[in-house]
Amino acid sequence: MIRIGVIGYGYWGPNIVRNLRGLEGCEVAGVCDLNAAALKRVSQTHPGVPVTANPTDLLTSTEIDAIAVVTPVSTHFELARAALNNGKHVFIEKPFTCTTRQAEELIELGERKKLTIMVDHTFLFTGAVKKIRELLDEGVLGDLYYYDSTRVNLGLFQHDVSVVWDLAPHDLAIMDFLIQAKPEAVVATGEAHLNGLVDVAYLTIYFPGNTIAHINVNWLSPVKIRTTLIGGEKKMLVWNDLEADEKIKVYDKGVQKQNGSGVYDLLVSYRAGDMWAPRVEQAEALKVELGYFIDCVTRNRTPLNDGVAGSRVVRLLEAADQSLSERGKVIQL
Amino acid sequence: MIRIGVIGYGYWGPNIVRNLRGLEGCEVAGVCDLNAAALKRVSQTHPGVPVTANPTDLLTSTEIDAIAVVTPVSTHFELARAALNNGKHVFIEKPFTCTTRQAEELIELGERKKLTIMVDHTFLFTGAVKKIRELLDEGVLGDLYYYDSTRVNLGLFQHDVSVVWDLAPHDLAIMDFLIQAKPEAVVATGEAHLNGLVDVAYLTIYFPGNTIAHINVNWLSPVKIRTTLIGGEKKMLVWNDLEADEKIKVYDKGVQKQNGSGVYDLLVSYRAGDMWAPRVEQAEALKVELGYFIDCVTRNRTPLNDGVAGSRVVRLLEAADQSLSERGKVIQL
Amino acid sequence: MIRIGVIGYGYWGPNIVRNLRGLEGCEVAGVCDLNAAALKRVSQTHPGVPVTANPTDLLTSTEIDAIAVVTPVSTHFELARAALNNGKHVFIEKPFTCTTRQAEELIELGERKKLTIMVDHTFLFTGAVKKIRELLDEGVLGDLYYYDSTRVNLGLFQHDVSVVWDLAPHDLAIMDFLIQAKPEAVVATGEAHLNGLVDVAYLTIYFPGNTIAHINVNWLSPVKIRTTLIGGEKKMLVWNDLEADEKIKVYDKGVQKQNGSGVYDLLVSYRAGDMWAPRVEQAEALKVELGYFIDCVTRNRTPLNDGVAGSRVVRLLEAADQSLSERGKVIQL
Amino acid sequence: MIRIGVIGYGYWGPNIVRNLRGLEGCEVAGVCDLNAAALKRVSQTHPGVPVTANPTDLLTSTEIDAIAVVTPVSTHFELARAALNNGKHVFIEKPFTCTTRQAEELIELGERKKLTIMVDHTFLFTGAVKKIRELLDEGVLGDLYYYDSTRVNLGLFQHDVSVVWDLAPHDLAIMDFLIQAKPEAVVATGEAHLNGLVDVAYLTIYFPGNTIAHINVNWLSPVKIRTTLIGGEKKMLVWNDLEADEKIKVYDKGVQKQNGSGVYDLLVSYRAGDMWAPRVEQAEALKVELGYFIDCVTRNRTPLNDGVAGSRVVRLLEAADQSLSERGKVIQL
Repeated sequence: MIRIGVIGYGYWGPNIVRNLRGLEGCEVAGVCDLNAAALKRVSQTHPGVPVTANPTDLLTSTEIDAIAVVTPVSTHFELARAALNNGKHVFIEKPFTCTTRQAEELIELGERKKLTIMVDHTFLFTGAVKKIRELLDEGVLGDLYYYDSTRVNLGLFQHDVSVVWDLAPHDLAIMDFLIQAKPEAVVATGEAHLNGLVDVAYLTIYFPGNTIAHINVNWLSPVKIRTTLIGGEKKMLVWNDLEADEKIKVYDKGVQKQNGSGVYDLLVSYRAGDMWAPRVEQAEALKVELGYFIDCVTRNRTPLNDGVAGSRVVRLLEAADQSLSERGKVIQL
Repeated sequence: MIRIGVIGYGYWGPNIVRNLRGLEGCEVAGVCDLNAAALKRVSQTHPGVPVTANPTDLLTSTEIDAIAVVTPVSTHFELARAALNNGKHVFIEKPFTCTTRQAEELIELGERKKLTIMVDHTFLFTGAVKKIRELLDEGVLGDLYYYDSTRVNLGLFQHDVSVVWDLAPHDLAIMDFLIQAKPEAVVATGEAHLNGLVDVAYLTIYFPGNTIAHINVNWLSPVKIRTTLIGGEKKMLVWNDLEADEKIKVYDKGVQKQNGSGVYDLLVSYRAGDMWAPRVEQAEALKVELGYFIDCVTRNRTPLNDGVAGSRVVRLLEAADQSLSERGKVIQL
Repeated sequence: MIRIGVIGYGYWGPNIVRNLRGLEGCEVAGVCDLNAAALKRVSQTHPGVPVTANPTDLLTSTEIDAIAVVTPVSTHFELARAALNNGKHVFIEKPFTCTTRQAEELIELGERKKLTIMVDHTFLFTGAVKKIRELLDEGVLGDLYYYDSTRVNLGLFQHDVSVVWDLAPHDLAIMDFLIQAKPEAVVATGEAHLNGLVDVAYLTIYFPGNTIAHINVNWLSPVKIRTTLIGGEKKMLVWNDLEADEKIKVYDKGVQKQNGSGVYDLLVSYRAGDMWAPRVEQAEALKVELGYFIDCVTRNRTPLNDGVAGSRVVRLLEAADQSLSERGKVIQL
Repeated sequence: MIRIGVIGYGYWGPNIVRNLRGLEGCEVAGVCDLNAAALKRVSQTHPGVPVTANPTDLLTSTEIDAIAVVTPVSTHFELARAALNNGKHVFIEKPFTCTTRQAEELIELGERKKLTIMVDHTFLFTGAVKKIRELLDEGVLGDLYYYDSTRVNLGLFQHDVSVVWDLAPHDLAIMDFLIQAKPEAVVATGEAHLNGLVDVAYLTIYFPGNTIAHINVNWLSPVKIRTTLIGGEKKMLVWNDLEADEKIKVYDKGVQKQNGSGVYDLLVSYRAGDMWAPRVEQAEALKVELGYFIDCVTRNRTPLNDGVAGSRVVRLLEAADQSLSERGKVIQL
């Protein structure tokens, strides 16, 4: 039985607590939030769960094995470090930390203390992303040409981080999971229109060979779009996360290189065939992920979304910020 | 009666000839193509129209007032220069030329000879673009925050130009027409996967103030997308050119800056209201544009899509190429 | 403070209890279900709410002012009659009863006892239906030509009632609310394919003048559709309840009668204008409806969705069944 | 070489002439229309093709082997009879005739004269309908449960026939081709709102066993819909003819009967799997059909869409009219 203390009960915290309470093998041993109204909501929805406004109560409790850090990113490092120093495993919101230096310090601390760190890259546990990974692993798509994601909507504006740190971590974590190659360079462009924080941004990530990724994030779009195009040598797919069913459509379409001599000959030819929408698992991703956290802690296994994975995402965010600050300067990684 | 010679009868030429033949005030005085099969198609569809495999026949004919250049971009400069030197007005495919130097030479020559140059930026004559321009002119959208276009599909691969020179001229011409400010910098990223030409590309164009434009062009997409998001201070719109009706949707949605003190307060607030799809004129854009060409020539007026407009687009394409060749280097204009 | 006993905690009951608990002015005084697992779920989610497997406990309790009947339709009459006889107001699931005779007996009993009966025609309390009613009341659509609803999906198969009694009550209640004329005749066709109950059905309802309604209900559709077309003399609208935003689209399209003499002249002409998607209120309809129930009981007002409204829907269902049993015989009302 | 005279050059005639001229093995030997403007359009588009305002010129010409009747339905019988009596094969617009008696007379005449009659049921020659037929023939869908088509749009109002005779022939011809069983009964409801002709109509067709078909046709819809749902025992499909690609989607979804005893047990269970959009042939259906006509005439073969098929559709239209005139009376066939 893993006893977990949850720090932070704002937008995402309630989902963490609700899912933990529905899982076997763990127990919510306490919830902390600075906001009294938040704590009142905990007590109403989860009578009997201890609450506190002081994180130290949870961080130092001997009744607690793990801490879920569900707070703004600026507080991640301090809270996670304290948790690890007190011998607690850590489940922590994305993005992992504000800097790669912080990330590395936490990773090193976790290793030394033999404690598990899991970064909440929830999308890796959706049926859609798992299915795409499966298609890539099985070679259905062939070599990867590009990964192109659009994640736009109206708000929710953050007061402390830009749209890059708010929305792009989802895409960067998914991309990191699917592409599994070391990125070479980042170019980020964008603009701030309202409160000084970038609210429209475009990231390009160059990989070895000719694989390229692009991420379009925007808080000022009148419509919500969650669409990723993935082009492979053999097949191409579209993942529309807003579709209730048929989230993933695999197209038997492609282009082949050809020999051609005349100046008017096309050097490529097309293939157009069936489209296929594989059935995608419908389980709530956060529940699957938290179950995996319990499992990793219990069996002492390294999660795929460990601190190192979290650190890779933070490294890309840092590079994007650096590029943005110079209107799109190329940042070599 | 303006007598027009058409050079090039490949993919787009037949549309030029068909539309010219349906217009009052002009006459197709000859069609030229190097390809005998193309000339045979002319004769079958338009019996009586003279054909030739030698462009000089048209360029030097005293029976011809204007030349339509509908050939690959690499031939534009030579053909247009010859036409102007022979005292003929020029209607020319986009992109205008391969370089701004060529564009400037043609502009200068046209001015000296008092001849009209019109670059075929067809989209400016669609009901959709005209309606968007109207909404901007009337201040319905307010100050422009961003212009974000996606123009992707499978093929048609060009053997001589990249996807940037093939598809982006549409967006750059529309953007130039709608934004009417001088761009400051271009950043372009992308990759070539098949025949050495870039087939996936992303362009960011920075304007004065905080207006930003982004163009996503791709020949390797399994689905066709023609969607532009335009975000303004007051309203936002989505232009989906693939919709049969309701191509433009105007959203009474917006974000306002607010005073807020607490660290947990949002500094912006949202407004969500009605959506409205104005009726959009359905006339064939190319027909409208060619009628406008006849009119400009007849009345000796400077077209809005003149050589100077064409040159501005070429300048951005050049900058994009330069940026692409260094993986996204920022090019100041 | 209205104290409410809820009988039935299957599919819909949990929504009733959850919403009642979130409302001011009422209290859930007890929940009854024959199924022990259902009662266990009540206690987990709503600790402190009394539960019982015996409906009589609630029906006869002096601590209870009103009963919500959330059970299969075959039990509605007995439970509602007992509630009314015990002096309790009644909130009851649709369809109201199995027969109009039962409905009339309950209405008469309610009137005699001066008790409120409200039938759960939830859709009348959605933002979409309220907006459509507003458009009709304001004459925006003009005279009503037709009402055409499609409500199809895969399952959820009922074991006790046909698709007509399961899905059509929604449409009939909405139609009754929007059209506000007395239907003249019903024609229903359909077929049973699996368990002897009709699972695909088509209802036509004739109204005075030339207003016609049609309802397509189907448990065997691979896709979910919830679309209603409403054609008026002046404007037409489409209500797509599956759209997250823009549920209602009003088209400035119409047809006018014209004088025409020649045999080849069209006698009608078309008008095509803008489309407009009015903003629709997003509140949870059931919460609004239950608040309205509390209000009607408290202020002793007759709800618009009273027993009489419920009875009108049952009358149409009865007529549909009769028609169906003779493969579409016309049933005069 | 089959020499064909085309009578009627209104809405559809130009497509017939254009396609015939593009086919090997036939020649357009003359075009007739009462309208001088129509004949002028023929001469402009097809210089050299003889034109006449007198159908007898074509019907009696010894230079003509076959007549295409592309006129309003009220003239079909007279023109087709004259053509057959003059020894000419007949290609004729849908619906075949105004009455089954007329249809039978033409069929009998055609048989006696050993001449081919083909009714223009164009949709049978689309890639979509051919693919659906293939899926049915191969047993992919299993036994057919229902066929449910919606074919609605704004106009084009006919001045001489109702929406049933205008739009439903498409669906009835497709249904006749796909279901291949003898319908047992027809129920049709509908209403006229403008010029006295029914403009909104709903047809149910009962087949042996429990197969049911339904057709929704409407000239007063603000949106265009061309969607057919087909439910089978094993699989279900949706055919959306307005989709550019992916016109047909086959769903691996189904319902199985089950044994179940308890009153709360569902007696059916669901299966939800992949969706699959088979590639559909893109050739122009009318061209394929006219090529088939030439082939049938040349090889003396009976077309699948012969007079008998045309007569079956007319029989259903007659029954629908009869049912409509009594507000949905069941018509046994």
